[in-house]
Amino acid sequence: MLKDFRIRPPFFEIGPKAYLYGQAALDLAIEADRLCELYDVDIIYTPQAVDLRMIAAATRRLLVFAQHMDCIPIGKGIGSTLPEAVKATGAKGVLLNHAERRMSLGDLRRAIERADAIGLATLVCADDLAEARAVAMLRPNIVLAEPPGLIGSAGGGVESRDYVRTINEAIARIDPSIRVLHGAGIGSAEDVRAMIRLGAEATGCTSAIVRAPDPVRSMTEMIKALRETWDATR
Amino acid sequence: MLKDFRIRPPFFEIGPKAYLYGQAALDLAIEADRLCELYDVDIIYTPQAVDLRMIAAATRRLLVFAQHMDCIPIGKGIGSTLPEAVKATGAKGVLLNHAERRMSLGDLRRAIERADAIGLATLVCADDLAEARAVAMLRPNIVLAEPPGLIGSAGGGVESRDYVRTINEAIARIDPSIRVLHGAGIGSAEDVRAMIRLGAEATGCTSAIVRAPDPVRSMTEMIKALRETWDATR
Amino acid sequence: MLKDFRIRPPFFEIGPKAYLYGQAALDLAIEADRLCELYDVDIIYTPQAVDLRMIAAATRRLLVFAQHMDCIPIGKGIGSTLPEAVKATGAKGVLLNHAERRMSLGDLRRAIERADAIGLATLVCADDLAEARAVAMLRPNIVLAEPPGLIGSAGGGVESRDYVRTINEAIARIDPSIRVLHGAGIGSAEDVRAMIRLGAEATGCTSAIVRAPDPVRSMTEMIKALRETWDATR
Amino acid sequence: MLKDFRIRPPFFEIGPKAYLYGQAALDLAIEADRLCELYDVDIIYTPQAVDLRMIAAATRRLLVFAQHMDCIPIGKGIGSTLPEAVKATGAKGVLLNHAERRMSLGDLRRAIERADAIGLATLVCADDLAEARAVAMLRPNIVLAEPPGLIGSAGGGVESRDYVRTINEAIARIDPSIRVLHGAGIGSAEDVRAMIRLGAEATGCTSAIVRAPDPVRSMTEMIKALRETWDATR
Repeated sequence: MLKDFRIRPPFFEIGPKAYLYGQAALDLAIEADRLCELYDVDIIYTPQAVDLRMIAAATRRLLVFAQHMDCIPIGKGIGSTLPEAVKATGAKGVLLNHAERRMSLGDLRRAIERADAIGLATLVCADDLAEARAVAMLRPNIVLAEPPGLIGSAGGGVESRDYVRTINEAIARIDPSIRVLHGAGIGSAEDVRAMIRLGAEATGCTSAIVRAPDPVRSMTEMIKALRETWDATR
Repeated sequence: MLKDFRIRPPFFEIGPKAYLYGQAALDLAIEADRLCELYDVDIIYTPQAVDLRMIAAATRRLLVFAQHMDCIPIGKGIGSTLPEAVKATGAKGVLLNHAERRMSLGDLRRAIERADAIGLATLVCADDLAEARAVAMLRPNIVLAEPPGLIGSAGGGVESRDYVRTINEAIARIDPSIRVLHGAGIGSAEDVRAMIRLGAEATGCTSAIVRAPDPVRSMTEMIKALRETWDATR
Repeated sequence: MLKDFRIRPPFFEIGPKAYLYGQAALDLAIEADRLCELYDVDIIYTPQAVDLRMIAAATRRLLVFAQHMDCIPIGKGIGSTLPEAVKATGAKGVLLNHAERRMSLGDLRRAIERADAIGLATLVCADDLAEARAVAMLRPNIVLAEPPGLIGSAGGGVESRDYVRTINEAIARIDPSIRVLHGAGIGSAEDVRAMIRLGAEATGCTSAIVRAPDPVRSMTEMIKALRETWDATR
Repeated sequence: MLKDFRIRPPFFEIGPKAYLYGQAALDLAIEADRLCELYDVDIIYTPQAVDLRMIAAATRRLLVFAQHMDCIPIGKGIGSTLPEAVKATGAKGVLLNHAERRMSLGDLRRAIERADAIGLATLVCADDLAEARAVAMLRPNIVLAEPPGLIGSAGGGVESRDYVRTINEAIARIDPSIRVLHGAGIGSAEDVRAMIRLGAEATGCTSAIVRAPDPVRSMTEMIKALRETWDATR
């Protein structure tokens, strides 16, 4: 856990994955940055590695995170993403162990230790309660709980996700300073509201934003819903 | 093979691997770019993915190549390097199948086809004669022949590498428009001279440059040797 | 290419994959062995690694091949399949680079060299013409041409696969002693006939046999069709 | 955690890795089986997948475990090790996540759940305290604690491994029914004694047995030391 990293609930993660890159990823990031100020929420934004520096330079409050890094030492490693090289782009953190980029338990542990040492916050994916507890033992800054069966789903039924409180409580018992973000299948502002009402302090979205007819509008509605529901319920 | 890609012998590849990143990688790139003009040689430079855009923007003649790309479609793919995202940085090509980042035969074939389609030149590694011939069947722009046992070696004994002509001739028989770069264990300007005298039209270096007390001087001596030996022997 | 390996057209491959194991894989192998004699055809059978020894011991003419092997030296390697350990089971060869178990070009080259050295024949998968030519450069005993889009397909349309002769001719130009097996989507005896009429000297089947209501009958019909069509057309 | 699995301290693990296979692996297993009776200790033996059935059939009390399995469903999966196929060999369990065969956290969780469901005990590797606690969250039967830097080491200094009690206590707090085996760098009977005196209830050895001039003698001395030290200290 990076000690210097501060993020305040409610917060949000937007993941361009390999949907957006270059100018389109930059444009969306600039709008997201504006929303951070407008609604006073922290937003984590995870662009393609090649876009990290450009987006970090063009935004102020947005928390730019890498999608992955390889826990190799400085030296050999063609085709890798060196942690120090990520840090030097101005990125504030790194996403690790996403369902689309699994890491072994040992690599994950070492990557978190390395991130702590060089000054990157860690957002680590877990599929379910057992994995969330296992990940918490490695002390990341944030656990990202995403049941893989729900990733990219059409959303709906968010209000029945009773695992949200169970995971929150389990993580809090292990270390209350670890934050928990509940993602997967968030398709609308209504889903964001449902997630916050369920007890989540953070959520996020990829496909329903990047594939929307108007991504900025979709994103804006979600961030607005996040802030309003949080204020109404906490 | 990207049709629009033009590179003229003698040429050179400098691979920062995960040794150099950020400012140091940029500084070396700018010096390399200057050497392209000074000695009228093409230099391929393969920085970390996060540094591609910055280096492409700061150089004119340097051929900036990615170290790897993942042959995925636009869409999912957290932690991947999307080909289109590489292209959008201003990179001119991509290194594929390095000993530190092997690709399956199928992925390699698809990556070359994708690079051709979106406008990236391909520099594809092969360990020996059999692999060089196999790679040539996939029609890259350049085959990079590097016996893995010699990568990062102290150099020396370059003059005894009689495989250089054998590989050149085998590739020429398959497709004379495929260029061949002979690397691995090039430790000095003297090694560059030996390689060109052996019949290579291109060579390259990583560790002996990035780990030299004065990398710019080491690089400059090699590029000068490349040009002089080429002019003296061809 | 293992020099001592002899296989005569027409031949066939049956791949239990991870569908069949233990007693069911043994039972089917024993029936396949009987068909080898009955129709005088060579059949390659590729069971799970754990079943190799049992099946090799219970059959006489069946060519038992491993589904994969790891090209590691004797020593470390937990979870690997050591080539020497495969050989010691009585297996006659090894399947390499299947779409479900890709290998890097370098690993594939080394695995073929190792198989040659310890006495295992090699059956190496290729997706298309370019890959088939690349694989042929590594000199396996047999190239298994399987367009991945057709693997496990319902069959049908086999008669329109005009790539069969193209690949056969390309391989023959590289090395006429390399055999070529054309698989993928062979769903019935009729598909076997179509494949042989197209010019194939060998074909194979997995799902249409292992998922048939009566696998032995399905297999028998295919082997009978193989022999009859071969005799009628060659 | 497989409920039906019973193992009693002190116990031991012998890992032939890819050092031993076929007849030599069988011979050592038969001797190990004899030692189980002679010293009334449980011994886990992890041969190459191809040797599982033969060794399970030739031994009585020896706990034969696979070195790995792939958590795939019955169906596709060439080159995989299907869990059901492992079970059908007579194996009693499976080693997972060894430093030589890492698994992603998600694959590891699913493999443990699958092993529980089909009746295989699980022995899961962890590098250090943090990983051991993470693995314990997934509820395996046994955690195998092996600092990778010590694997294959010449042994020595075992008595200074103060992490042994720390890990034991941490696991016991999570679930006292999880057993803990402390391995890595056990080079002699003296090392076995030191490990048991440190508080371990189980240890194991690979290289110092398989590479000994007389493996059976080396193994016998270790098992004798295990039993005697246990009886003298518990």
